[in-house]
Amino acid sequence: MVVQRPTLSDIGLNAGKKTRLLRILFQNGLRNGTALFLPYDQGLEHGPRDFFANPKAGDPRYIIKLALEGGFNGIAIQIGLAEKFYWDFAGEIPLVLKLNGKTDIPSDAQALSPLQATVEDAVRLGADAVGYTLYVGTPAQGADFAQFLKVRQDAIRLGMPLIVWSYPRGEAVDAKGGTDSFYAVDYAARVASELGADIVKVNFPHPEKQVNVKKEYAREFSTQDAINSVVKSANKTLVLISGGSKSSDEVMFGRGREAMEAGATGFIFGRNVWQREHDESLRFVERLRELLSHYPA
Amino acid sequence: MVVQRPTLSDIGLNAGKKTRLLRILFQNGLRNGTALFLPYDQGLEHGPRDFFANPKAGDPRYIIKLALEGGFNGIAIQIGLAEKFYWDFAGEIPLVLKLNGKTDIPSDAQALSPLQATVEDAVRLGADAVGYTLYVGTPAQGADFAQFLKVRQDAIRLGMPLIVWSYPRGEAVDAKGGTDSFYAVDYAARVASELGADIVKVNFPHPEKQVNVKKEYAREFSTQDAINSVVKSANKTLVLISGGSKSSDEVMFGRGREAMEAGATGFIFGRNVWQREHDESLRFVERLRELLSHYPA
Amino acid sequence: MVVQRPTLSDIGLNAGKKTRLLRILFQNGLRNGTALFLPYDQGLEHGPRDFFANPKAGDPRYIIKLALEGGFNGIAIQIGLAEKFYWDFAGEIPLVLKLNGKTDIPSDAQALSPLQATVEDAVRLGADAVGYTLYVGTPAQGADFAQFLKVRQDAIRLGMPLIVWSYPRGEAVDAKGGTDSFYAVDYAARVASELGADIVKVNFPHPEKQVNVKKEYAREFSTQDAINSVVKSANKTLVLISGGSKSSDEVMFGRGREAMEAGATGFIFGRNVWQREHDESLRFVERLRELLSHYPA
Amino acid sequence: MVVQRPTLSDIGLNAGKKTRLLRILFQNGLRNGTALFLPYDQGLEHGPRDFFANPKAGDPRYIIKLALEGGFNGIAIQIGLAEKFYWDFAGEIPLVLKLNGKTDIPSDAQALSPLQATVEDAVRLGADAVGYTLYVGTPAQGADFAQFLKVRQDAIRLGMPLIVWSYPRGEAVDAKGGTDSFYAVDYAARVASELGADIVKVNFPHPEKQVNVKKEYAREFSTQDAINSVVKSANKTLVLISGGSKSSDEVMFGRGREAMEAGATGFIFGRNVWQREHDESLRFVERLRELLSHYPA
Amino acid sequence: MVVQRPTLSDIGLNAGKKTRLLRILFQNGLRNGTALFLPYDQGLEHGPRDFFANPKAGDPRYIIKLALEGGFNGIAIQIGLAEKFYWDFAGEIPLVLKLNGKTDIPSDAQALSPLQATVEDAVRLGADAVGYTLYVGTPAQGADFAQFLKVRQDAIRLGMPLIVWSYPRGEAVDAKGGTDSFYAVDYAARVASELGADIVKVNFPHPEKQVNVKKEYAREFSTQDAINSVVKSANKTLVLISGGSKSSDEVMFGRGREAMEAGATGFIFGRNVWQREHDESLRFVERLRELLSHYPA
Repeated sequence: MVVQRPTLSDIGLNAGKKTRLLRILFQNGLRNGTALFLPYDQGLEHGPRDFFANPKAGDPRYIIKLALEGGFNGIAIQIGLAEKFYWDFAGEIPLVLKLNGKTDIPSDAQALSPLQATVEDAVRLGADAVGYTLYVGTPAQGADFAQFLKVRQDAIRLGMPLIVWSYPRGEAVDAKGGTDSFYAVDYAARVASELGADIVKVNFPHPEKQVNVKKEYAREFSTQDAINSVVKSANKTLVLISGGSKSSDEVMFGRGREAMEAGATGFIFGRNVWQREHDESLRFVERLRELLSHYPA
Repeated sequence: MVVQRPTLSDIGLNAGKKTRLLRILFQNGLRNGTALFLPYDQGLEHGPRDFFANPKAGDPRYIIKLALEGGFNGIAIQIGLAEKFYWDFAGEIPLVLKLNGKTDIPSDAQALSPLQATVEDAVRLGADAVGYTLYVGTPAQGADFAQFLKVRQDAIRLGMPLIVWSYPRGEAVDAKGGTDSFYAVDYAARVASELGADIVKVNFPHPEKQVNVKKEYAREFSTQDAINSVVKSANKTLVLISGGSKSSDEVMFGRGREAMEAGATGFIFGRNVWQREHDESLRFVERLRELLSHYPA
Repeated sequence: MVVQRPTLSDIGLNAGKKTRLLRILFQNGLRNGTALFLPYDQGLEHGPRDFFANPKAGDPRYIIKLALEGGFNGIAIQIGLAEKFYWDFAGEIPLVLKLNGKTDIPSDAQALSPLQATVEDAVRLGADAVGYTLYVGTPAQGADFAQFLKVRQDAIRLGMPLIVWSYPRGEAVDAKGGTDSFYAVDYAARVASELGADIVKVNFPHPEKQVNVKKEYAREFSTQDAINSVVKSANKTLVLISGGSKSSDEVMFGRGREAMEAGATGFIFGRNVWQREHDESLRFVERLRELLSHYPA
Repeated sequence: MVVQRPTLSDIGLNAGKKTRLLRILFQNGLRNGTALFLPYDQGLEHGPRDFFANPKAGDPRYIIKLALEGGFNGIAIQIGLAEKFYWDFAGEIPLVLKLNGKTDIPSDAQALSPLQATVEDAVRLGADAVGYTLYVGTPAQGADFAQFLKVRQDAIRLGMPLIVWSYPRGEAVDAKGGTDSFYAVDYAARVASELGADIVKVNFPHPEKQVNVKKEYAREFSTQDAINSVVKSANKTLVLISGGSKSSDEVMFGRGREAMEAGATGFIFGRNVWQREHDESLRFVERLRELLSHYPA
Repeated sequence: MVVQRPTLSDIGLNAGKKTRLLRILFQNGLRNGTALFLPYDQGLEHGPRDFFANPKAGDPRYIIKLALEGGFNGIAIQIGLAEKFYWDFAGEIPLVLKLNGKTDIPSDAQALSPLQATVEDAVRLGADAVGYTLYVGTPAQGADFAQFLKVRQDAIRLGMPLIVWSYPRGEAVDAKGGTDSFYAVDYAARVASELGADIVKVNFPHPEKQVNVKKEYAREFSTQDAINSVVKSANKTLVLISGGSKSSDEVMFGRGREAMEAGATGFIFGRNVWQREHDESLRFVERLRELLSHYPA
């Protein structure tokens, strides 16, 4: 039984947000309401080392062209690359401007992803959505929520869809099952919905990670049970599954299918896509699109 | 002897606050000046685990409908759910927009509940009150008071009733009798009144918790003595009794009756209500309403 | 054939506007989606001379009580009276804060109704709508539109329904059929809709006034034809029929019935109501309510 | 010899403007760089009388559907209709939010079109362009330019294409050849370009109107000469030809072909389209599209 | 194989930025697109001790004259020196106003370089660029990014080129290979590009520093490999090589040649220049210019 995804008319969008999400979901990619995004903020989040596997991927032009060839629904980049590279491709593929980010050099114990761009920057650049990384459970959540409040209000004021990278993080998360336990991911999905995300990007939940998680999660769940619960926790917030670090393809596709059955909207896969040789990337993307084609809205 | 509750003409309200409180207390619920609120911010405060007892409760629509069926005076939710779910029910039940909140993942030793919405958001959404969690006694009270100052001023400027969740919290509270000692709750009620709350939500005080409390509280008090003192400490700030985690019904009703005798305005019960099967929830609510019906303003 | 009025879910309202209009239309008055408003800004617009017919009507308390006794959906007053008199009745009847107004001492040739209150004033006072007089066709329309722009944006930002008193006025209107010709009223209804009114208050159109009107209006129309056209011109903007100066009751009721048949939402009658002795006012109101009861939404 | 139109990479657009213009010109309509816009602000500019020829055209829904059926590149409406009607069609057709407008009731001697919406309103609604009526030659040009300055700056700041309805108007224009002389239209095209329009909408120039025009224009020009000059005067500002009041189709198509030969980008035809019965409208539009198909960018 | 540097038309500059960079790169220095900057903020960063080797260098006039004599492309100074000394030489050599800086007295463990001037100061002074020190990897990156966000937006708004001193710094950097490892410098170049720098100043990378660096960097690289990677990581952000503390000339020139081969734009050398006797400084500069002359844009 496939869970029905909510329609764009039923999730609390004003006209600007609805216009832009319609464009992303129904006028790009497969045009069937599913989504496949290409994130490319790893140069900031991890540094150029992520490009060593496929050096061409260090060039933003290569990535944008790959997104066009692959038929993605959008590309998520930071302000500097957007300013330098998007103009050449303006309007050819939806831009998701990532508003915050950080390096992975300091400790993540009190992780906070600082803002380096605004919703108004996104409007000026012609973006169709903004992205914000929320570190759920971090001791720095006071500063995080304060940043997010302004972003959320601006996104409403300017009719800009708001995609939240909702990531459990910080010393307390590490001590309670880790960042991708079912407990942590389920909580993260709900927090994004409670705080006002239009779309939430989560990692696939791992129900087997149960050390020190809350007792409700310390029993046996299938991965399908877990992702069903995560999508339900997000309620009217659309769900994207994150690829994370490059994994075995069969694992990826298995998770992806379970997520779509649960009612997710699609995927946001970066390293799994571009840490491969060009043609292999496209073949991988083609398989993702084939999967998504079975789940029209 | 029942203590007389203050009237809306006698507690320092401007026209907007009086209009909205009249609506909540006399045009909804029992329409007799008492109040029964349904809080639904546990998805943020505790995560989806609170919905495992009754999975339907994970759906905000289920909760809002329950509040309508049960004849509640209002529903307290976070901004994200308000944006996504309230429009469909706009005006059918008063909205209390909860302005701050946090996850329970990091330690509460230095607890602070960061803002994720503003009084102006509440006005835009048609809310009849805002809610703010004040952690009384936390080492972070400097940041807490600074946040609260702005909320209080905005609430006056916009005529919006301000309900304070006044909760003793933090390492110092833990070291002095805990979060629900008579000492701590009495202090919390007074702090909310001193800082400008229109309504204060407190836990029921436990006079038997006396380890390391101030000496004035280290002697025998009945629970009626304790709640009498708490309501008196709140003076012109109306008092709501919090349900907290799901307890035995007989304990709940006993405490509730004592609170109403003491002059409280009503209850704000969440998990005690919706962590039950639907019809049982309504039966429980009916008993609460029956109790409140004996205490008209 | 009665024209169907648009529902509150279908006229572009955000949550706050929908909440407040639901309150006005379905939780006050006949609670059937029709509306009967009592306007009381004549003390500013015409001066105390309007109260000579029934001196008691000079006392705002008398008027507010009349509105309560008569079961009105709201009362429209200026800021000064709202500050002085509404607190005593806060929440008992919806307040429509009239934001602009003028005296009738200078010439109306270049009429402009200046602002003396803001939408934020209305929020602070607990109002459920704001009123704005737009003088359609006046040479001062530049200043008028500039004022209105800010009011409209604030009304959206704060979720406040916006009622436009859309009155043809000025030397050019006088030269083209006058202020209540079918041509002028039809145009005024459309202008309010084009500029963003939620509700428009118009005078009943007079199709027989054809001197110098545009050629399309210079032929025979029944009054029913005319009011049908006016309501259609307002499209999703709800229509209220203004009483204007006190007329024969039979004329009033005839026009009222035609307006409701055309799909109007109700009436806003001042002098016709309170320029009578108290009990006669209530009898007149009772007849209006009886008429409205046949046109539920 | 067809004049080459400038490309989107060569007309000084920032990324947001380029994104949105690409969408209008290459992802809607014929998708070949030409444009056919449907303007629908006549309800404000002329009043409902313009809908008497085809009463269905008074309903904005009819018009938006007509634009969708006809394959237009965008629809230009005022803020009130946009707020009420665009949400249902959000993203299905580009929205051009008209920012200013006026009634035709007062004299045009000192014409000024006052603002009733902002570029930020357009962003919030998901619009792809804004429209501004500039009355070239009016004695009120001081106020006009002051309004336009803010609009232009906001349009740059927010990456929003700016379409200028550049209309010679006012007593001085009337005294020097009238509003559609070659002299006046040529001047208007240049003024829009000098002041910062991205696109200019002009009336087709009439070289035969020579009474009191500047001496350079007081000699014989073909209409092709005239429109060539107008497009050249606009230089990197794209040119749209206005339909004006409903004319003979053969005249329209003749002018349209000459404009496209001159390097215009397309047409903005309202009354010529919707003052006809539905199917006839579509047939007329189909002929316009056929004409535009011969002039790809 | 020399890597081609990007042209000024291809790196996302608005007109003001392009104008000022063209002035720096093609109308000063060698006028061939390369750059040689003289930084003189060491009085703040290190104190007067840096001038003990050549006491004349403590006088800003001496330095500015040296820059003029040496044919530099610009001089980078703090606001106080700019206010006091630039007027005398205004326009004779491009001014790079350094916007932030700090003393080296406290620990660098949580380094942050606070702002002491704004982009608007730079405009007022006639500067052709601003400089900002970003400490990549510091635990204070939240405050750093927040500062930088404002600088970046102001630089775009005012058309001012933005040069980022991108320096790995802080306790986490020290623990992972240090501030000038290939890993750290490569990451710093990318971060500047991701965040929106027009030009990035980096230290020359040391591939042999591999203790605790990420595994991708823990293998053998030539210095040419390393600098090639750094310039590639900066993509469209132009690269300047920092001199750092005074080194052996032969090392300097070797590194410089490798950097230019990699596609760098030039050098920013301070102490290596002015910690010498006057004529020796000029001879050193002459050798740098000779090197740059082989790498025209």
